[in-house]
Order: sequence, then structure tokens, then C-alpha cells
Amino acid sequence: MTINILGCYAATPRTFTNPTSQVLEIKGRMFLIDCGEGTQVQLRKQKIKFGRIEHIFISHLHGDHFYGLIGLISTFALLGRKNDLHVYGPKGIKEVILLLLKVSNSWTTYNLYFHELESAESEVVYEDEKVRVSTIPLRHRVYTNGYLFEEKPAERTLNIEAVEAYEIDQAYYRKIKYGGDITLEDGRVIPNAELTFDPPPCKSYAFCSDTAYKEDIVPIIKDVTVLYHESTFLESEERYCETTMHCTAKQAARIALKANAGNLILGHFSTRYESIDLFREEAATIFENVDVADDGKVFEY
Amino acid sequence: MTINILGCYAATPRTFTNPTSQVLEIKGRMFLIDCGEGTQVQLRKQKIKFGRIEHIFISHLHGDHFYGLIGLISTFALLGRKNDLHVYGPKGIKEVILLLLKVSNSWTTYNLYFHELESAESEVVYEDEKVRVSTIPLRHRVYTNGYLFEEKPAERTLNIEAVEAYEIDQAYYRKIKYGGDITLEDGRVIPNAELTFDPPPCKSYAFCSDTAYKEDIVPIIKDVTVLYHESTFLESEERYCETTMHCTAKQAARIALKANAGNLILGHFSTRYESIDLFREEAATIFENVDVADDGKVFEY
Repeated sequence: MTINILGCYAATPRTFTNPTSQVLEIKGRMFLIDCGEGTQVQLRKQKIKFGRIEHIFISHLHGDHFYGLIGLISTFALLGRKNDLHVYGPKGIKEVILLLLKVSNSWTTYNLYFHELESAESEVVYEDEKVRVSTIPLRHRVYTNGYLFEEKPAERTLNIEAVEAYEIDQAYYRKIKYGGDITLEDGRVIPNAELTFDPPPCKSYAFCSDTAYKEDIVPIIKDVTVLYHESTFLESEERYCETTMHCTAKQAARIALKANAGNLILGHFSTRYESIDLFREEAATIFENVDVADDGKVFEY
Repeated sequence: MTINILGCYAATPRTFTNPTSQVLEIKGRMFLIDCGEGTQVQLRKQKIKFGRIEHIFISHLHGDHFYGLIGLISTFALLGRKNDLHVYGPKGIKEVILLLLKVSNSWTTYNLYFHELESAESEVVYEDEKVRVSTIPLRHRVYTNGYLFEEKPAERTLNIEAVEAYEIDQAYYRKIKYGGDITLEDGRVIPNAELTFDPPPCKSYAFCSDTAYKEDIVPIIKDVTVLYHESTFLESEERYCETTMHCTAKQAARIALKANAGNLILGHFSTRYESIDLFREEAATIFENVDVADDGKVFEY
């Protein structure tokens, strides 16, 4: 599981900082999460192949999270893209994109599907045989969702020594990997647990930005492998959190702790601070495995 | 008169090339012309004060000429801008920007005025005591205007020796500078030409992008000091001009020649070419004073 941070700063694009966008690679799928202005250039800089992105998840319709989407959709068309593109985001996103295409008398060379969201409850928005994506309803100034990406359980790992000892035919290996017990020719039933090992644990990634402190999300993201949580402010600016509906680094850490997250990545930093390492330091007083995002940084788990 | 090229490449923003945007400074006014994605970052890199931009002229609603506008308008608001902002562009631009503000539940901290254009004829869209701006109807795949920026005649330069020789009171200097004759106490009438010199000639700048070859614009831009004309292609790709409604460098040079332009700046280059100097070379076979734009380049006249 790889998280490629294209941008992780709040408010406006600047000379050396980009608004929110990141690419999650999980089980061979590549998902683009949020798409601030300049995302297509960041994708080029990170040498990410445009064609591999087939699903784009937008958290909310503030500019620093989606003003780069129309440019990306247009560029895909200019490059003659053929494969489908799915966009998930708050209701309204379709109207905006279609109007922008209309005024420029443009159309896409590929099928463009919108999945508009308006539920206040967590819901599954994407699912295939390897991955499931659900929303994480957040609390922000406009309707906002985080997204939880979960690997599905893989097939069990064959205990080669055991299956060979029982002289089980290879034709049954598939059944065993899927959890089945085996009845031998002499009638003995060998339980699956004797023939397999547990598969590697399923990884998961929760993207939560932007949001005020919201403990309601804890059950949704419980035991997540990696939590990316916004931390716009340091504790010294906590007074701004309620009006702007953002979090401090410590609040993000508290969510990570309560959710028993394996790792916490902080992002969506206000550009008022001299060093983003201060975010890590404050969060680390509450939660141990904390790291800070930065544009161009790649995390692997 | 200064032209600051923020971006001058066609189609899509790339790692080292930006879509169309430029800042014209003329008679102390600062005009932003077109606003491709990433323009606000280019403005920061060129250290142009956001507050000095009060008028934005958009040629047409293709993405590479206006996808940066909503981000700029939003950033101005986030920074608490107070002074008015005027946007000139094709009909439809207001609906797009207002919808984008609406879905993000945002508003501006300043007065935002739209001047929507739909005329097929040249028209004056802005005028103050020093500068006049008119449209230059172009021929492109969507409704498109270039813009002609003209200095207005300045007041005449006082011939100090002459006015002192006639012992004319300083109270009359203003009248003389505005072209008035003077009647002395003894009844003699001194014609203005004896008391003043011609003011420096008025400069003008024509921005013409995007457009197919269109000779109809020649009378509008006749004798222009500087013509910025698109040249998406070299002659070897001239066959694409009619379908895409773009020009070659030589076609741009022919317009400059027919219009008796003082200088020609080429821009809106397709990124397929290895060197933009090839554009200059081809145009120079037809028109002498030719230069090529490039991102970050500043021209002074």
C-alpha cells in the first residue's frame, strides 16, 4: 500500500506548496483522492501514469480540494483517453463539471461517470474483488466525506508440508485456499486450519480531511492501518478550530489513539507555520506512530 | 509598457510549461489577460501584488485560458481583498464562476463585476482617462476575443523657454498642456504649437490568442506598438490550422506585417516542438521585429 502525497497544504496553492491531492495505490488499484489546483502537474512530476487513474474521490467542494479536477478531466480528453473515469463527490459536482465542459464546447473521449454523495451515514461507494471504499462522514463548513479504503481478505496461505503429508491432490488446493475442509479417501475430515496459514492481515487507509474534531468517525475507522487526518492548526491556534471546522495536530492524534490506528499521517497544514515538524511533535505527545505529509513524499506500508 | 508572460503554452499545464496568462502594465494600470490553471502561483513567482490587479480579460472559455480564474478569485477572497475586481469575458463566464462559488458555499470579500461579451464586432470594454481597452473579435472554435490596450494621448509637453519668453503666468500652464492657445495682455494670440512639444507617442498592445488566420483584425490593430499573436504551429503542421483554428508562426508574422505592428511577440506554442526558437526563425522570414514569449519572460517597450 503506497500513498503518494501530491499536495497537503491548506487554503491556496503557493510557489512551493500545493493544495490537497494524493494517490493511493492499494492491491494494484490506483485511486486519486482530492484534486486541488495544479494536481495534473503534480501527477506529472511524480511520474504517475494518467491512464492508471480510473477512480477519483473528492472529499468536498472547497477549491483547495477540487479546483484541479476540471483541468485533469480536460487533459485526459486532450490526450485521447479511452478508459472509463469515475468521480465520487458531493452532490453538485456533476453540474459544475458539465457546465465547465459545456461553455468550452468540449466533451470527453471517454466515459465519465459521476457518483454523487449526499448521505450523512457511511456508505460503500466502490467495491471490487480486492478492495472496498466507504465514506467517512466528516464535520466541515460544507458537506464533506473522508474515505476508507479497505483490502478484502485474501485467500489463505497453503501449508505445503501439511497438504503433501496428507497426499491431497492439487485439484483441491483452490478449495483449501478459500477455507474449505478436506475429506480424504479413507473418510477422515481434515479441518482447513490444519492445511493453511492465516493470510497476511488486510491493510486499510482512512483519508479524513477536512474536518472539525469528530469522535463519531472512530467506529468507522477502528483499527485502520493508516489514518491520514487533517491538522490545519497547532495547539496555539486551537481557538480557530470551531469556526473554521478544522483540527489541531493533537486532536488528530486523539482520533488516531481512540481508533487504534497503526499509523497517523498529518496533513492539510496552514502555511502560517515555519516548520511542519511542529505538527509531528505536538501529535507525538499523544500518539506514537505519527508522521507528517509533505508534497512529493511517498509512504509505503 | 511592460508585458509579463506568466504562461504561453497551448493545451495543458505541464511540469515546466504553463497555459496562457500574462500581465500587462500600461500607464500604471495592471491588467491580467487570460488565466490558465496555475496562474495564481505564476503571479506569486513573478512577485506581482494581487491587489494591483483590478481588471481581468478572458479571451475565451477553453480551459487553458481560464481554469485558473476561479482559484484566483477564491484566493483573493481568502486573503481578505477589499478592492473591486472586474472580469471581462465571453457570456457564460459569470454562470460558471457563481456556480463554483455557490457549491463551495463561498463568497467574495470584495465587489466582483462581470462584463460578459457576445458581440461579433470590436467594442470598447474599458476606458479611463489614460487607457482604453477594446475587443478584437477572433476566429476560434468557441467565441473568442483578443484585446487591444491603447494609451490615450497624454497632455502636451510645455516648451518652458517659450512660455517664459512670453511671460505667461503659471496659472495658464494647464490650459497650454491641454492644447489651448494663449491671448496675451496686449491682445496677441500665441498658438499652442509655439508653446508646446508633441507628447511622447501613445503606445498600444494587442493580445490575439487563440485564433485562426484572420485578416479582418488588421484594421483594428493597425500600427499597434506590440502585437502578441498566437502561433501554435510551425509551417510543417500548417495542415492542422483550419481544424483546430490556430495559426503558424508565419501566419502570425503576416498579420504583424499587414498591421504595420512595431513588434511581434509569438506565443501559445504547442509543446510538440523541441525549441521555441524555431517559431522566431520562421516568423523572421516575413516580419523583422519578432520575439518569442516564454514563461517568466518580461518585455518592456
